[in-house]
Amino acid sequence: MRYISFTDEPSIAPDEFYMNEAIKEAKVALDLDEVPIGAVVVCNGKIIGRGHNLTERLNDVTAHAEMQAFTAAANYLGGKYLKDCTLYVTIEPCIMCAGASYWTQISRIVFGAHDMKRGFSRINQQITHPRTEIVSGVKENDCATLMKNFFLRKRSKS
Amino acid sequence: MRYISFTDEPSIAPDEFYMNEAIKEAKVALDLDEVPIGAVVVCNGKIIGRGHNLTERLNDVTAHAEMQAFTAAANYLGGKYLKDCTLYVTIEPCIMCAGASYWTQISRIVFGAHDMKRGFSRINQQITHPRTEIVSGVKENDCATLMKNFFLRKRSKS
Repeated sequence: MRYISFTDEPSIAPDEFYMNEAIKEAKVALDLDEVPIGAVVVCNGKIIGRGHNLTERLNDVTAHAEMQAFTAAANYLGGKYLKDCTLYVTIEPCIMCAGASYWTQISRIVFGAHDMKRGFSRINQQITHPRTEIVSGVKENDCATLMKNFFLRKRSKS
Repeated sequence: MRYISFTDEPSIAPDEFYMNEAIKEAKVALDLDEVPIGAVVVCNGKIIGRGHNLTERLNDVTAHAEMQAFTAAANYLGGKYLKDCTLYVTIEPCIMCAGASYWTQISRIVFGAHDMKRGFSRINQQITHPRTEIVSGVKENDCATLMKNFFLRKRSKS
């Protein structure tokens, strides 16, 4: 008799696991011809909010993946603070989304690739909440490649 | 026979007129026991979006007056840009709302009272769109008094 040891299974770090879920959301946006950015909010190991960019479909600049994931997570929890939660998002949040994260008091933000043009970290002053830990570069290449291919395809069409 | 001359009527500057409409929205929030902030978006002299703070009622930190007014205005126009519009808001937008205004490319932001704690202008770097003109201090006392009275009442209850 042979017991299966789960330690034999290929393991995946939690941050990579949840970033993969955010990437799945980005791919939903891609299928809708939206800029492919996706996000999930995780609390105690459970995904409690998901979102993907819908700015074109909704004609609404506020319909970023993070904003929708925040709203969904708060709706799930029944309260507006996300103090013990982590946001996973494929691309560095913009100033609007980082500003929203301040109000949620979220514990962690984990993002894939930097956004050199509109990412919040280009601002030197504190935008996120002081208690929010920031982690970057998780599955960075996968996240960035989705964006690069999207814009290359857009440019080749125009 | 006496013709009525409209120039005899007490006149009101357009910015004050529309700020009064934003104040009406703030009072709707107040009646709901929400932090009393209101906003309207104006295009060619017409109010095309209204909003008041609903963060408590909706359990959603993103439900600021400005965000709702942006979404309503874009919905009215059928496009996500508000290039020829003015946002009137009773209190200086926070970083989230100012970040949202960047994406709308709105022409003007007119606000009543400054928010020394979370107002976007405490950040030295550009948060709003370069083409967005900022005007402050319109009906400042009325806008600030609504807030002061709200928080005084909250404190006296706690």
